[in-house]
Amino acid sequence: MFITLEGPEGSGKTSAVKYAVEQLEKMGYQIVQTREPGGTPIAEQIRNVILDKNNKAMDPRTEALLYAASRRQHLVEKVWPSLKEGKIVICDRFLDSSLAYQGGARGLGIDEVLQINLFATENTWPDLTLLFDLDPEIGLARIEANSMREVNRLDLENIKFHRLVRNTFLDLANRYPNRFVIIDASKSRKEVGEETLKVILDRLCKSNSI
Amino acid sequence: MFITLEGPEGSGKTSAVKYAVEQLEKMGYQIVQTREPGGTPIAEQIRNVILDKNNKAMDPRTEALLYAASRRQHLVEKVWPSLKEGKIVICDRFLDSSLAYQGGARGLGIDEVLQINLFATENTWPDLTLLFDLDPEIGLARIEANSMREVNRLDLENIKFHRLVRNTFLDLANRYPNRFVIIDASKSRKEVGEETLKVILDRLCKSNSI
Repeated sequence: MFITLEGPEGSGKTSAVKYAVEQLEKMGYQIVQTREPGGTPIAEQIRNVILDKNNKAMDPRTEALLYAASRRQHLVEKVWPSLKEGKIVICDRFLDSSLAYQGGARGLGIDEVLQINLFATENTWPDLTLLFDLDPEIGLARIEANSMREVNRLDLENIKFHRLVRNTFLDLANRYPNRFVIIDASKSRKEVGEETLKVILDRLCKSNSI
Repeated sequence: MFITLEGPEGSGKTSAVKYAVEQLEKMGYQIVQTREPGGTPIAEQIRNVILDKNNKAMDPRTEALLYAASRRQHLVEKVWPSLKEGKIVICDRFLDSSLAYQGGARGLGIDEVLQINLFATENTWPDLTLLFDLDPEIGLARIEANSMREVNRLDLENIKFHRLVRNTFLDLANRYPNRFVIIDASKSRKEVGEETLKVILDRLCKSNSI
């Protein structure tokens, strides 16, 4: 089973999944936790090009193609081999992040970005995608509370961008209702963790009963 | 006007174009000679990932996506600005190389590789593509003659691969007859240079008379 996690930084997905994986492993499930680029050397080299702070001239389409290339290599070297061994693969961010960030928020178009990603994934879709949904204003309030600083102009610009990202994620959840489960990430860390575990267990039970 | 050069290494395209560009510049044409990745830092970083000898695990689809990413950045930063200034851009290798090498010879399929390249190029096609066509056996004979060594197993394997590349290039010339001009690269260096100049001048006259 291939599970992906989507949602903004600060939505608590990392700690929620940490809790869920601990519980699942106690129950005897074999979990491979990964994230793009997932520690394969080629995918990491590609990621370094994307994240290099000097690469300000990078065009959004270049960026989208590089994410797709990194995704492909991660699938080939890590995700597919683990799935073949019968393991549960939980991957932090996958194709939906490209659709939301490059397709939606950067305006390249969801279907155009999907097309190059289908070339990369050869139609590999997650069985389950957990969307940790959070109002960007709440995310910003969390930043304020943690860092004790005032909200600046850049934060507000970011909010517009992250509102676009959020709306695209919610559109995707509408588009793929069987695959997506939305988790209300505004709840407490404990509640979000328990909800995450419950959703994954539900899906595991359903897939076992087929 | 956007002119691309295709064909195998050893087909003499570099020296043929050098000759043609010298003559064209004497006639007052403004030429920008470039090659992918074309000296833009981001495209070169991508090229380094592709050509790194340690990256033996690179999947053909990863490779195709990286070439498309590098092509995109080179277009944005170098080709389009030069064309906008009214210059003649002559680019050593472009989209047809991806179609021939990854699409044809590596078996990913021409149309699939074309699709991701159209995302990268936003439908920018060369006005003229010179295909320096050469039988791989003749290319191999040239290698032998130059390096004075015997042909090895790897060369013969390469010949199969390069025969596939050649056939795909010829298929592409059939597919796009208005854009492609085939140059017989088995002729002497002088003849190939003169033919190259003649073909480019013909096309420039036609485009001026429209």
